[in-house]
Amino acid sequence: MYPDSLEKLIACFRRLPGVGERTAERYALMICDEDEEDVAEFAAALVDVKQKLTHCRICGNLSEGEECGICADEKRNHRQIFVVQSPKDVIAMEKTGEYHGVYHVLNGLISSTKGILPEDLNINELVERAGNAEEVILATSATMDGETTAMYLSRLLQAKCPDVLVTRIAHGLPSGGMLDYADEITLTHALVDRRKV
Amino acid sequence: MYPDSLEKLIACFRRLPGVGERTAERYALMICDEDEEDVAEFAAALVDVKQKLTHCRICGNLSEGEECGICADEKRNHRQIFVVQSPKDVIAMEKTGEYHGVYHVLNGLISSTKGILPEDLNINELVERAGNAEEVILATSATMDGETTAMYLSRLLQAKCPDVLVTRIAHGLPSGGMLDYADEITLTHALVDRRKV
Repeated sequence: MYPDSLEKLIACFRRLPGVGERTAERYALMICDEDEEDVAEFAAALVDVKQKLTHCRICGNLSEGEECGICADEKRNHRQIFVVQSPKDVIAMEKTGEYHGVYHVLNGLISSTKGILPEDLNINELVERAGNAEEVILATSATMDGETTAMYLSRLLQAKCPDVLVTRIAHGLPSGGMLDYADEITLTHALVDRRKV
Repeated sequence: MYPDSLEKLIACFRRLPGVGERTAERYALMICDEDEEDVAEFAAALVDVKQKLTHCRICGNLSEGEECGICADEKRNHRQIFVVQSPKDVIAMEKTGEYHGVYHVLNGLISSTKGILPEDLNINELVERAGNAEEVILATSATMDGETTAMYLSRLLQAKCPDVLVTRIAHGLPSGGMLDYADEITLTHALVDRRKV
């Protein structure tokens, strides 16, 4: 219905996560109204990201150099490794300002429904690093796939690096969460993992 | 927090309508995972839209040529003009398959809050076209700005082209709409504009 070039741009926007036909149309029509300069900048930013970004060879996080800023930082504790699913999680944790170790980004989770196997993830590198670590903190999400991955990793690490302390981040009532709104699994976790005050 | 090139892409996505920090991050991280080819295609589509698309010199709709497909179509009734705010509305109406006249795209609405004046819109061209038309159908949205624009246009057209029939699309209960869910203004319209069955 739209001119060809616009239809093509709508199709590109539709590939973004959670974007349907209507939203893609809205985005594309806004691009039509933008200055040519701004659109050229957007196009350049897309190409740039693919050309400049790579994965840190140590932790797997997104990085513009061979090593990311965190792995290259000598002030951080390189014997404590915080294992997450994606680069987003690194940013979320860094925002707390409470963690001073390093990270390991799996770039995915083991998933039977999506057919993602352990060998598709950045796991071999984790086992290698874990040999020199004191603690590996498993911080995958509290979802089905996140728990499966954490379980798999904890067994693997305990078998391959028996001297390493393997921990899992705490599960329980979120800050500001009301007891009667929490689901049963969250409440069960909160009860089982209770601690002395 | 993210590498520079990624931060820049996130900022570009944030300019899209309704996109906040989280969504822009999600989009940008998906781009990191896409094939280089697909991303290059996306970048090219952005540039293409700005280079190829222009406004139809007759109706103001988006078009790849000087005249859009609808204005160039001799089978359509060129003496009936359906006036809308944006190219999206043309597509919505074309999907009904019930309209066989031509369009006029204002590319905006008169708005006191956004400071958009009649001279910012594609209105002079409408007055020129209306001189040769039988009917001008005002089909701006049933919002405050849409009603203001329709009111302005109806007065202007009646003054400048007194022979033209100026109509407004019907307002009332939407198809599938339940009476007790409709707001008061909609119900008032539905009552006032009732017709003999």
